[in-house]
This record gives sequence, C-alpha cells and structure tokens, in this order.
Amino acid sequence: MGTRIFDLKKYLSTLRQLVDEALQGYLEDGSTSTRIGQAMHYSVMAGGKRLRPILCIAAAETLGGDRQAVLPLSCALECIHTYSLIHDDLPAMDNDVLRRGNPTCHVKFDEATAILAGDALLTLAFEILADTASRSSNGDPVRWTTVIAQMAAAAGYRGMIEGQMRDIAFEGIAIDTDSLKTLHRLKTGRMIEVSVASAATVCCASQDVQQALQTYSRNIGLAFQVADDILNVKGDPLLLGKSTGTDQMRGKNTYAALLGLAGAEQFADQLINKALNALDIFDSKADSLRAIARYVIERKR
Amino acid sequence: MGTRIFDLKKYLSTLRQLVDEALQGYLEDGSTSTRIGQAMHYSVMAGGKRLRPILCIAAAETLGGDRQAVLPLSCALECIHTYSLIHDDLPAMDNDVLRRGNPTCHVKFDEATAILAGDALLTLAFEILADTASRSSNGDPVRWTTVIAQMAAAAGYRGMIEGQMRDIAFEGIAIDTDSLKTLHRLKTGRMIEVSVASAATVCCASQDVQQALQTYSRNIGLAFQVADDILNVKGDPLLLGKSTGTDQMRGKNTYAALLGLAGAEQFADQLINKALNALDIFDSKADSLRAIARYVIERKR
Repeated sequence: MGTRIFDLKKYLSTLRQLVDEALQGYLEDGSTSTRIGQAMHYSVMAGGKRLRPILCIAAAETLGGDRQAVLPLSCALECIHTYSLIHDDLPAMDNDVLRRGNPTCHVKFDEATAILAGDALLTLAFEILADTASRSSNGDPVRWTTVIAQMAAAAGYRGMIEGQMRDIAFEGIAIDTDSLKTLHRLKTGRMIEVSVASAATVCCASQDVQQALQTYSRNIGLAFQVADDILNVKGDPLLLGKSTGTDQMRGKNTYAALLGLAGAEQFADQLINKALNALDIFDSKADSLRAIARYVIERKR
Repeated sequence: MGTRIFDLKKYLSTLRQLVDEALQGYLEDGSTSTRIGQAMHYSVMAGGKRLRPILCIAAAETLGGDRQAVLPLSCALECIHTYSLIHDDLPAMDNDVLRRGNPTCHVKFDEATAILAGDALLTLAFEILADTASRSSNGDPVRWTTVIAQMAAAAGYRGMIEGQMRDIAFEGIAIDTDSLKTLHRLKTGRMIEVSVASAATVCCASQDVQQALQTYSRNIGLAFQVADDILNVKGDPLLLGKSTGTDQMRGKNTYAALLGLAGAEQFADQLINKALNALDIFDSKADSLRAIARYVIERKR
C-alpha cells in the first residue's frame, strides 16, 4: 500500500479548483447583489484548504464513486465549516480580527451581518443537500435524507456546537488529555468524520467499510487538531495567515502544552499510523486518502 | 363558509400542548444536562404562541392529513422561529433584553451561548426533518426532501435572513409601503408561508390547492405584521410581555407610522378578507384556518 507515487499536490489543487467553482456557482446564484450575499461570498472564497470537501471526494473515489455525485455534498460541508469559522471569530467568542490573512467577516462587514452570514451559510448547506436529494435521479433519496441527518447531528448541539461551548468554557482552565480529546473530537472531529461518512452513505458502503473509514477519519481529525496546536507554536505566521503563539497567550488547552512539543509530534504520528492502518482493506484507490493523512501532519498552514 | 361555530380557543390550546410536548421530547433527548441544551430549552419553552406549528397542523388537517404526520415538521418550524428570535435579540442586532416577559437568551445565559443556541436550533430543525424523512414509512421521502428545501429557502439568504438584513439597514430611514411590504414578506412572511406550504407538500396537495393556500398564508403573514405594528402602539405591555411604543422610539418603519393607526387597521382587515376568500374552495375542514386568520388581527399578544 502507498508505495506508488501519488501526486498529492496536483490532486489537492485539482479538487480545490473543482470545489471552488462549485461553491462560486452556489454563491453567485443571484446573491452577490445583496450585502448578505457579499458577506457569504467573502468568507467562503477567502481561500481555505477545502480539507473537508476534498476528504469527502477522496472517500467517494476510494469507494468507486463519482466526483460530481458528491460535489454538492462537499460544498455543503464547506458552507457549514465557513459558518462555524465566522461565528467562532465573533467578538462574543474568539474575537479574532484576522482569518487566512484577511479581516474576519465581522471586521470586513459588521457584527450583525457576520452573524447572519453564518446563519445563511448553515441554512444554505441544507438547501444544497435537499435540492440535490430532490433532483437525485438514481432513485434512492433516503440515502440523502440520511446524509442530511448525519450532517445535522455532527454540526449540532451534540457535536460541533458542544465542542465550541467546551472550548469557551475551558479557556484558562487546566484540563487533562482525555477532556481535550473529547473537546476536539466534538469541535473539529465530528465534521471531519462526517465528511468521510457522508460520502460512504452516498456510495452505499458496507458496514465494514464504514467502520474502517470512521477509524481513518477519527484519527486524522484528531491529528489535524494536534498539528494545529504544533503550528500555533512553531508555524510560520506568513504561511498560516494568522498569528502564532496565541494559544499560550490565551491560556488555551493544547496538546503542545499538555504533552510538550516533541510529545505532541509523536502523538500526531501515532494517530496518522492508526489512520493508515485502517485503510489496509483498500487497494490503491485509497492512495488519495493515504496521502491526505500524511499531509495533515506535514502541512505548513 | 365559517358560519359554524369553531372553538378556536380550545383548538389553539390543544395544539399548543401537543406541539409543546413534542418540542420537549426533542429538547430533553439528553440535552438539558449541558449549558447549550439548557439555553435551547429555555428559549423554545418560553411560552410562544406556536403560530407557525399550529398553521402547519391546521393546513394539514384542512387537506385531510394527520396531526401526528406533520408534528415533527411543526416542531422544526418552531425551532427555526426561536433561533431567529434569539439572534434578532442579540446586542449586535435589536439588543432586546426582554422576550415574552422573560430575559432574552443572551441576558439569561451569555452572548456566545445565545449565538450557539440559535445555531443549534437551526441545525436541530433540519435534523428533525431529515430523521423524519429517513424513517418515513409511507414510501415517498422525496416529499420530505422537498420540504427541507422549501424550509431552507424560506429561512435563508433569499428569505428570512434577507428580511432581517433589510430591517437593520432601514432602521431610521424612511421607506415606502411597498418596500415595507417586501421587508416583512421576507422577514416574517416567508416562514409563515412555508408553515402552510410544507404541510401542503407532505399532504401531496394539487397545484390549485397549493395556490389557494399560498394566497391565504401570504395575506395572513402580512396581516400578522401589521397587527404587530398596531399592538406596538396600542397593545397592553403586560399581555404582550414586552414594552410598547418601542417602534416609534427606534424610528422603525411600521404600517402604523406610514398609514396611521386607522389606516393600518383597515389594511389588516383587507388582508384577512383576501385570506378568507382564498379558502372558499375548501369546506368546513378549513374552519381552523379561517378562525386563525381572524385571530391574527384580533389577538391581544
């Protein structure tokens, strides 16, 4: 496995372009003439990595599925991700003024517009999914309603939102590694997991395959957060498009703080190995997922 | 039509109880142990009129549909409505401290929790709909994906959210009656319309019937807002559970200000008559909808 050469850079850039074009299509559907449409467009097109959409597409391709079939799904994932960033950046939450090197939504527009732009992107995600489901010609809309339910559960009060609540509640309070793992699984992990799981639902994956993909996504989700913590200590602010050292300044609970930098790096490696092992049941079709797993801890931004 | 005696008071109280119990069920599903769950529960159970859920059920019953079949749908409508109130009340928007006589969510909890509770209720609405669709045993999940798409479109950046954007943008700026109508159709009308339209979708209503119901809901939606404006001038703050005279104080564009109190009352009557006329194609099964139309302008809160 993974001994063939897989051109990840090209794969990421191709998919990024595909996703960006599809997102443009959804966002320019008559919306940019309004201030709310402009705010939505501004934040979505601010140059994200598109990790969740790409994971979704790579998972679908691993299962023999079609890029185009899961493209709406991948756009919905990015809409939810962007909404969560806009709301997390608000003065009442992290009060961040920069995101990916640009002013955050509430700085560029205003607070009310940022709250509503987040609301609108969350709503748009479900509209995209429901529209796709209604138009689905392959006769099984139940798969799509399952996807909508999975997505809502991952994003909702038992998932991402609870993670954000804990992130705020724990700021400045020392917690142990297990609590930090649960926090991150909720805050970022659940949406990364559903990026893969929703593709598996659309592709009618078997239980075994779903299980393997969940082990994969759960481990890279956590590794992604550990890598984020490491980058906040030793990353390049210019490449990251945001300040570093901020976690320590804010008294945030991080793996770097709990395990030390070397410990955190070792932990991230372990997680990625677990993710790669879970992919052993797949052939070379999973090379994209394998390459993404390595990228998660090797990335510079 | 409407000459029979319809006991609206009893009908409203029965349905309110039914909806409240169903909402309790969704909200107490393990959520009240968390702060976010408590905030969601607090705002949803703060004693609303449940107008949208009741309209949804009344429309379904008019079409020979079943109360229980649209109960999840009516709960989803109330979740979206409550989320919109929580976010509208935020300091960055209307900065209201009282809602239905109680502290608003951000006052009772805090701003971050209120933003996230709104987000969580919006997400929960789609989870309820998707779960219902997935479990739907009557073989047509496409009806449900259509409902989800309708709901998202009504609540989103071309609907309710754009209405809120205009409401903020127009504060203190004089606008004409047409602009005010469009604002209200977006801000409150679209969700009232979809309360009825989604029931029609679930009940597989014909085009003609859908059209009649749309005329009905569009007119009562606008009448509801006109009545709100009138209540803000001459309502009883104790019955309303909120201060009166606030629209004038804030320089809000209202029908009372544009048309005068008598003119606004006349306009509301005209709208209700149009709504009632649209129901002429139905027999006594529509008596609940007829009674609700009258209630919209006769209510004291």
